[in-house]
Amino acid sequence: MEIMQVTGSLVCTQRVPGLEHWNLRVLRNTKGKLSVAVDPVGASPGNWVFTASGSAARFACGNPETHTDLTIGGIIDFWEPDG
Amino acid sequence: MEIMQVTGSLVCTQRVPGLEHWNLRVLRNTKGKLSVAVDPVGASPGNWVFTASGSAARFACGNPETHTDLTIGGIIDFWEPDG
Amino acid sequence: MEIMQVTGSLVCTQRVPGLEHWNLRVLRNTKGKLSVAVDPVGASPGNWVFTASGSAARFACGNPETHTDLTIGGIIDFWEPDG
Amino acid sequence: MEIMQVTGSLVCTQRVPGLEHWNLRVLRNTKGKLSVAVDPVGASPGNWVFTASGSAARFACGNPETHTDLTIGGIIDFWEPDG
Amino acid sequence: MEIMQVTGSLVCTQRVPGLEHWNLRVLRNTKGKLSVAVDPVGASPGNWVFTASGSAARFACGNPETHTDLTIGGIIDFWEPDG
Repeated sequence: MEIMQVTGSLVCTQRVPGLEHWNLRVLRNTKGKLSVAVDPVGASPGNWVFTASGSAARFACGNPETHTDLTIGGIIDFWEPDG
Repeated sequence: MEIMQVTGSLVCTQRVPGLEHWNLRVLRNTKGKLSVAVDPVGASPGNWVFTASGSAARFACGNPETHTDLTIGGIIDFWEPDG
Repeated sequence: MEIMQVTGSLVCTQRVPGLEHWNLRVLRNTKGKLSVAVDPVGASPGNWVFTASGSAARFACGNPETHTDLTIGGIIDFWEPDG
Repeated sequence: MEIMQVTGSLVCTQRVPGLEHWNLRVLRNTKGKLSVAVDPVGASPGNWVFTASGSAARFACGNPETHTDLTIGGIIDFWEPDG
Repeated sequence: MEIMQVTGSLVCTQRVPGLEHWNLRVLRNTKGKLSVAVDPVGASPGNWVFTASGSAARFACGNPETHTDLTIGGIIDFWEPDG
């Protein structure tokens, strides 16, 4: 999973049916690249999160037919470096 | 999902059967790289869209046996930066 | 899907059973990187094609158990830039 | 699979249900990029490991519905270069 | 599929159950990046091979539940450039 920071939300009135009730967050990775992710955990702008991509992103939504390739897996409290 | 801009359409008379009735759009990502995506939402050149890749691209077409690895998931109206 | 150009064919006498009757093409992407793809459409060297990767590559062969992660999806006739 | 080194553990109180009983490790690849992986083998900081990504990451957990896209596949004892 | 060269073998006594009877090879791609792959074809150090990634890597092992994301698909005899 990748470590990313929430930077905002995305507004899309015209979208595929399988995404309709999900919040879409704009995330920035540690190199500055922006991505869009489904958010089932309720992250806020500024939060550091980790994300699941690929088929895991569909399972992480609770419904494996959700049309996403990136889903927030959890909000990072902290991490312990080097043991 | 990735943020991309529609730049045109692709004409291919010779293609695999599982793609035959879909519009194929040429998209450019924020680094200038071109990709080809199935378009189930009716995007126009100049539109900013987000795209689903991998197995989610197949589900986003309504038929998980569609032979695509990139599908437009929605047209972006706007996004709210930093809360 | 990615846009690539056919540069040649690959000869492999020793390979996994699930690939045995397919033509394997060597493709170059727009950055010069070489890849190997299954070719169900009959592309020739010099042709520009688009390719499906991941699980879509298996479906594009007609048999989802084919052992490929890259399959030619169609030969590009032309594309209409910017509307 | 990729070769990576364990650098620490991740603490996340708020996460998706499908990850709840797994240890999450922070890994660094040979280019310095950090990722988060599920650890079913009990790796320690400093260990060199190899990781499975994509759908293989879900199978490597023993439960293919685990919401991960990166799982440690084994701890590297040593490798024999060039035969 | 990607073109890579075998550089050695990997020894891992502690690994996930789903990989236990497979030889693991260390491969180098044309940019020098190292990866680890399951080898069902019996490649030797110095051989040029092509590799299947993602879900195709699991199918290429004969058992789609193998915990691999990279599998050697064949040993390259030669390839014919530009027709």
